[in-house]
Amino acid sequence: MQYPNNIKKCFTKLSVSHSNRGMNLENALNSSNNYYLKKDYALIYKKPTPIGVVDVSYNNHKKIIEKAYFKEQSTLDYNGLYRGKYIEFDAKETLNKTSFPLSNIQEHQTNQIRNVIKHGGIVFLIIRMNNINYLLTGEDYISYIDTTNRKSISYKYIQEKAHIIKESYQPQLDYLKVVDKVYFEGE
Amino acid sequence: MQYPNNIKKCFTKLSVSHSNRGMNLENALNSSNNYYLKKDYALIYKKPTPIGVVDVSYNNHKKIIEKAYFKEQSTLDYNGLYRGKYIEFDAKETLNKTSFPLSNIQEHQTNQIRNVIKHGGIVFLIIRMNNINYLLTGEDYISYIDTTNRKSISYKYIQEKAHIIKESYQPQLDYLKVVDKVYFEGE
Repeated sequence: MQYPNNIKKCFTKLSVSHSNRGMNLENALNSSNNYYLKKDYALIYKKPTPIGVVDVSYNNHKKIIEKAYFKEQSTLDYNGLYRGKYIEFDAKETLNKTSFPLSNIQEHQTNQIRNVIKHGGIVFLIIRMNNINYLLTGEDYISYIDTTNRKSISYKYIQEKAHIIKESYQPQLDYLKVVDKVYFEGE
Repeated sequence: MQYPNNIKKCFTKLSVSHSNRGMNLENALNSSNNYYLKKDYALIYKKPTPIGVVDVSYNNHKKIIEKAYFKEQSTLDYNGLYRGKYIEFDAKETLNKTSFPLSNIQEHQTNQIRNVIKHGGIVFLIIRMNNINYLLTGEDYISYIDTTNRKSISYKYIQEKAHIIKESYQPQLDYLKVVDKVYFEGE
């Protein structure tokens, strides 16, 4: 069967949609960060994805990108300032029900997590799994991968160690409430 | 006189070159940040410039940007973590010899400076003027604009309040030495 080109384009988009799995989680986090910003609770932003520009043109002295490709972020995707502290984190989503595949986290991201811990910042992963959002501290993540050779984190470990982030209307994901409990309790 | 197209393109590039005035300063800062990173002194990065994507194509499931434009950064350009503290700054360059035009700093950047101060972070401007690199603290910048209606900062104020950043081979601009003195003295 022959499909028209615009339909074919749709198939291509669908076939790469797994790379957009984090989209809903990302939207929820962006909306939560906007809420925190408006309420003056925290200054936390998603970093723009870096690009490599191949070709540009100029229209009325305005630079237009005519060809470019996405590059890899050197850091985690989100960073900012909360209660005088540096915060950095990344958001990961898996459809897997029994374990979180470590292939979701690249080596330079693991290095960045180690570095932020070493320099005294707050660093964590937000993991959406089985429709629940968890905050796993950088320390618990590093302690896991340093003591195992497994290629995934069992769901049991996440349930035991990670902290559930409540969903609500606003902010959609109130992860700073977990940060308060985990990093600021007693202050 | 008619010029060939490739020469015309050159003219267009030259005519917008004032927007690239900060390029050398930016390169010096990127190289200094790489040095700090390699030496494990600090984790400080320039944020990628955000873009608005108009059109994409797919090549072997890899997304190619076919048209896009540059958007404005919501924050200052550089941020990161140093000695357990959140740091954010921007770099500005002027060819003006007697005063630094405030038109170089946009309103949302001034707001961001106020916000970082309020939330307990370290924030400053690196200003290159008369071939000297100065670090002007966010506090001194805000105190200036809140007490004057002038459209520029006089060079005299910069000489009095700002701190000279020494240039060397590596790091090219050792601005963290100034940060040590201004923000960590006595620790």
